[in-house]
Amino acid sequence: MSGSSLGRLFVVSNFGESHGPAIGCVVDGCPPGLPLTAADLQADLDRRKPGTSRHVTQRQEADEVEILSGVFEGITTGAPIGLLIRNQDQRSKDYGNIMDTFRPGHADYTYWHKYGIRDYRGGGRSSARMTAPMVAAGAIAKKWLASKLGIQIRGCMTQIGEVDIPFSSWDDVHTNPFFAPNNGSVAELEAYMDALRKSGDSCGAGLRVQATGVPVGLGSPLYDKLDADIAHAMMSINAVKGVEIGAGFGCIAQKGSEHGDEMTPDGFGSNHAGGILGGISTGQDIEVRMAIKPTSSIRLPRKSIDKAGNPIEVETYGRHDPCVGIRATPIAEAMLALVIMDHMLVHRAQCGDVAVDTPQIPAGFSNY
Amino acid sequence: MSGSSLGRLFVVSNFGESHGPAIGCVVDGCPPGLPLTAADLQADLDRRKPGTSRHVTQRQEADEVEILSGVFEGITTGAPIGLLIRNQDQRSKDYGNIMDTFRPGHADYTYWHKYGIRDYRGGGRSSARMTAPMVAAGAIAKKWLASKLGIQIRGCMTQIGEVDIPFSSWDDVHTNPFFAPNNGSVAELEAYMDALRKSGDSCGAGLRVQATGVPVGLGSPLYDKLDADIAHAMMSINAVKGVEIGAGFGCIAQKGSEHGDEMTPDGFGSNHAGGILGGISTGQDIEVRMAIKPTSSIRLPRKSIDKAGNPIEVETYGRHDPCVGIRATPIAEAMLALVIMDHMLVHRAQCGDVAVDTPQIPAGFSNY
Amino acid sequence: MSGSSLGRLFVVSNFGESHGPAIGCVVDGCPPGLPLTAADLQADLDRRKPGTSRHVTQRQEADEVEILSGVFEGITTGAPIGLLIRNQDQRSKDYGNIMDTFRPGHADYTYWHKYGIRDYRGGGRSSARMTAPMVAAGAIAKKWLASKLGIQIRGCMTQIGEVDIPFSSWDDVHTNPFFAPNNGSVAELEAYMDALRKSGDSCGAGLRVQATGVPVGLGSPLYDKLDADIAHAMMSINAVKGVEIGAGFGCIAQKGSEHGDEMTPDGFGSNHAGGILGGISTGQDIEVRMAIKPTSSIRLPRKSIDKAGNPIEVETYGRHDPCVGIRATPIAEAMLALVIMDHMLVHRAQCGDVAVDTPQIPAGFSNY
Amino acid sequence: MSGSSLGRLFVVSNFGESHGPAIGCVVDGCPPGLPLTAADLQADLDRRKPGTSRHVTQRQEADEVEILSGVFEGITTGAPIGLLIRNQDQRSKDYGNIMDTFRPGHADYTYWHKYGIRDYRGGGRSSARMTAPMVAAGAIAKKWLASKLGIQIRGCMTQIGEVDIPFSSWDDVHTNPFFAPNNGSVAELEAYMDALRKSGDSCGAGLRVQATGVPVGLGSPLYDKLDADIAHAMMSINAVKGVEIGAGFGCIAQKGSEHGDEMTPDGFGSNHAGGILGGISTGQDIEVRMAIKPTSSIRLPRKSIDKAGNPIEVETYGRHDPCVGIRATPIAEAMLALVIMDHMLVHRAQCGDVAVDTPQIPAGFSNY
Repeated sequence: MSGSSLGRLFVVSNFGESHGPAIGCVVDGCPPGLPLTAADLQADLDRRKPGTSRHVTQRQEADEVEILSGVFEGITTGAPIGLLIRNQDQRSKDYGNIMDTFRPGHADYTYWHKYGIRDYRGGGRSSARMTAPMVAAGAIAKKWLASKLGIQIRGCMTQIGEVDIPFSSWDDVHTNPFFAPNNGSVAELEAYMDALRKSGDSCGAGLRVQATGVPVGLGSPLYDKLDADIAHAMMSINAVKGVEIGAGFGCIAQKGSEHGDEMTPDGFGSNHAGGILGGISTGQDIEVRMAIKPTSSIRLPRKSIDKAGNPIEVETYGRHDPCVGIRATPIAEAMLALVIMDHMLVHRAQCGDVAVDTPQIPAGFSNY
Repeated sequence: MSGSSLGRLFVVSNFGESHGPAIGCVVDGCPPGLPLTAADLQADLDRRKPGTSRHVTQRQEADEVEILSGVFEGITTGAPIGLLIRNQDQRSKDYGNIMDTFRPGHADYTYWHKYGIRDYRGGGRSSARMTAPMVAAGAIAKKWLASKLGIQIRGCMTQIGEVDIPFSSWDDVHTNPFFAPNNGSVAELEAYMDALRKSGDSCGAGLRVQATGVPVGLGSPLYDKLDADIAHAMMSINAVKGVEIGAGFGCIAQKGSEHGDEMTPDGFGSNHAGGILGGISTGQDIEVRMAIKPTSSIRLPRKSIDKAGNPIEVETYGRHDPCVGIRATPIAEAMLALVIMDHMLVHRAQCGDVAVDTPQIPAGFSNY
Repeated sequence: MSGSSLGRLFVVSNFGESHGPAIGCVVDGCPPGLPLTAADLQADLDRRKPGTSRHVTQRQEADEVEILSGVFEGITTGAPIGLLIRNQDQRSKDYGNIMDTFRPGHADYTYWHKYGIRDYRGGGRSSARMTAPMVAAGAIAKKWLASKLGIQIRGCMTQIGEVDIPFSSWDDVHTNPFFAPNNGSVAELEAYMDALRKSGDSCGAGLRVQATGVPVGLGSPLYDKLDADIAHAMMSINAVKGVEIGAGFGCIAQKGSEHGDEMTPDGFGSNHAGGILGGISTGQDIEVRMAIKPTSSIRLPRKSIDKAGNPIEVETYGRHDPCVGIRATPIAEAMLALVIMDHMLVHRAQCGDVAVDTPQIPAGFSNY
Repeated sequence: MSGSSLGRLFVVSNFGESHGPAIGCVVDGCPPGLPLTAADLQADLDRRKPGTSRHVTQRQEADEVEILSGVFEGITTGAPIGLLIRNQDQRSKDYGNIMDTFRPGHADYTYWHKYGIRDYRGGGRSSARMTAPMVAAGAIAKKWLASKLGIQIRGCMTQIGEVDIPFSSWDDVHTNPFFAPNNGSVAELEAYMDALRKSGDSCGAGLRVQATGVPVGLGSPLYDKLDADIAHAMMSINAVKGVEIGAGFGCIAQKGSEHGDEMTPDGFGSNHAGGILGGISTGQDIEVRMAIKPTSSIRLPRKSIDKAGNPIEVETYGRHDPCVGIRATPIAEAMLALVIMDHMLVHRAQCGDVAVDTPQIPAGFSNY
């Protein structure tokens, strides 16, 4: 247990700073016998990395991951898997002016007060760059879950700033730079983002992530519930300020006769539960949505103070995402994969030999 | 680490079922030297317990807590504090008809599939009755935080079903049966709830909980962030389907120039952050909101299946809250207290001797 | 994680003080489906309890355990199992004279300095009475391990004071008050203990505990090794000052050609390893020995100081074991059962689906 | 929590295999503000590394450590510290003959059965090479403990094979290749080791490690006792088969009137307790001894089986330590430092503000 580790049996211990020599993680608890290469991890890293379009930060990082341990002749051994990504394109001089100041909305102030020292360059430990190792670790989980259980995890944007993105198709998500599930929205989004970038401001975003094929039974009530751990993982992502499962905040105005998903021999009639009841997976699609706040690093001047307490104005230059939500989709997918993987192992431990007499009920229902 | 324990250094291990002999918990890690009696815990238990108005379940439980250990001559010793509450008013026959059926929206189905066995009486382990020990444990944390640091934690309802409750005053919260911060809303709420109860249906609710006086610096990035642990704790509460911090889902449509809370020598100019930046407390009020789904136990008939897979109709009788959100306020307060207490100890461990040179900046800002 | 919890997936959270209202524990993580009654736990509790012969403390405690949760219609549900034992025969006045003094060799001094407060009655939290809940929890583990895997756990004394006890038969252990594996030693032991009691002094003891039928593969290198967790668990028992596995300290003087257990198609040729290699079980008998120090509570006067630092003499009256090792056998058995149980679940989690192609080698060897 | 992590608040997550690309660890929880460079870690690594004399393995590794994160401008930030050591002198062909066989006394058999796959080269994950990252991590703890609290940790050999090493002076330890606290023993040890190496056999060793200046109060009863965690850490070291504290196994034959350390206003009269009572440090020197088994990798032929179960003879060539205990001293020191560091933080968390009214008693006694 420590601040930079996530998980109980599939544990990821993350290290690194934005402008330090390297970032990475140790993945401890991966079952043995899984074929694994760095290429398996690189695909998702490439989806996340900066510099891929004009709508995101222009920092150029190859984000090439190296596997240091835990794999022998291309197969995981059960030993910890060390993953390393060297930083290459740090431009620390960009951050010289914030050495003694606090950017509003950033962690600068809190890190300094908590630790008494702050690596200010590129946001240091608080930088979203620290999600890269999690994406690599999440790719290991994704591969195991897919190959062993047929579980698929995918995410998309639901909203960018005030622009709502109606869902059209999962297939669209990978064909535009916004992870938007609707190619028909792209023109509007491009115009919106171009104007935003010119204005020097930033916007928030809404993101959705889904897991299909999850067996019933994952989750350990009362305090390792699957939805609670999902909320924890998503809220851990930089800039997330809200998480909801299934109908989420929409269920405040629902009646019980509407919200409760009915059951028939053919399956569930709806999925307001978002795939989780009593903290345990039902076999239905797990549906998660989250809110991502607008980037704090903007060119527009903002009032703040310096370390001595003097009032100052802060304009943040450097290469920043005007909407950090855009690159968050692979990160949210990775976090969901890590949580499900961890729960799979814990469930297998406590209930691995449970046999349930259910002749007419399929192991998992899919929703209509 | 186990499914029914919450916390790292202030750990609560919960046990019990709704219709078992007793419920309770062990609180391990409470610092020594805190004056503590059962009366300190009873007040919050009384706020939570059933049977207090016609708008909640009519089950009569005294919920009297007994301290079994960890206190000597009225002072905590640093040893684990065992808390016990005997169940008295179980009416197990009320549940006879659901022994082999699954109530839609309930954990019946998932518990049975996960464990292969289900204590169906009163919802067993999945019952909201299991929040009583957490309220008792939370009262210990509340007392320590208030006496040592002046931290106050309080909650209220923001919405019941479709009825929005505009905030008027914290003082109103304790003077009506709805934990509503506005006595002017009470008549409308009573009419709404009376109609709901007659209809045999249930509704959802929106809840807000706040902590004031929290010092800057609590939270351990990246995976023990204060907001992530708060989200985890709230999502662990029965029936919660969404959690947000500060501006929450509202920040999707905000610009960075609006969302980021500016700073001046007099303090922060706003609190969209909800008191947490980069996963660490800023010293501002911590603001949390959550969504509670409508009760699944309703008299209206609903389609479901039995263990053999046959289609059936379920009508849930017995004594159930038509809106579980109403009694959730003291529970949410308790969970917030437990998370802050745990973080206080962890922060003291790693950074207990950090001195920050901040002559002009007060240790904590309050918001305007 | 907390100071009074043992285990990762089969977790026991212990609470209580020697003269408080009650002692007990919460067992969290027991697999569902195990038949369990209080009678299953009482047998081992009766082996451990005080007052059973003139050679142990004369405090009279029934040590009757009550199951508060986690069992439904006689079967474990997978939910936490709360266990409660009420204290009955506290004679707190016996301890009045040590309220402000520190008994040499006791935890009085360290508890007071650590916590600033000390429940001095009967040793408070530091009393060996706190092993009773562990014996109850260990009985649950013993039952699961025996019924599922055929694992048997048993212990005996190897030495009491200067009296060596040559091993004769496991069957003898339960037929004399010393847990001695040799009825032929009983007369000598009785004479020794009678003389010791008259003298007002105390003596140490050597204890052995063994597990047979343990499958190969339990243990998670590098820091959850089976032998490391066994050493931790045994050293946690009151008064233990040394732990060794297999040949233990005897292997310092061995050569590699003698110590390394050879292997043939018929099995291992010896068991100097004590059933564990590289921190993982080999399938051979797990052999553990430990050293238990002489009781610190003796009638003979000893030099000490009081809280003000004045020199004093301490004579400890009350009802104390002249050799705490005698009642330690069921405790050590319980601890070994808890560690193996925990490891069984963790191994099942990470490697539950590993298939090893070993046609000629039986799953487990027994030693010659 | 995971198999390759050690500690609760000062957590070391170890990764790597003997012949993989690199080994290393992540140290999470180091307090901020500690000056730290790679040179601080290199000194202890150099004491541990192979190839330093004819009495140890001749594998040549520089064991140069690189700090990847957690340090800014030479000061720790409170963020995780990534440590990396590249492997350079792997001679994997040396291990070709054991690919399908199991060396008696080695973890080959258990790893293969547990994981179904084994990186056999150089012992893979089970190699003592994996102690190098712990020595680096331990150096961080040593530095903090020394600079903040004046705690010193040092170890030495007490016995090599049948050769007892009478204690003469701590100063001798660093001046001979055996970590012997007695230069007068060196000639005898050299002759013994030369003969052993010629014979192709190996021998065991006894090791002692001590911590001075430890404040009273470290340790969290009942299951995070300081001595229990020390036993766990030492037993985790490759080849350790026994651990004892203070008088250890010698206290079996002691009487209480002799074993219990008396107290006077001038301090303790003896230290049979080894610095720990009731699982909590007393302020006296912490004294630990352990037994290290003879190396399993010897040139002498031994009976074993191959994966198919056929009887074979194994002669292990390659570059192996004839007495692994010789290089274990810096490892044991590192482990003791890590445990004390972890306990320091936990104690600070729970009892950081305890004030004990002890005008006449110094905070810590030293032994006569």
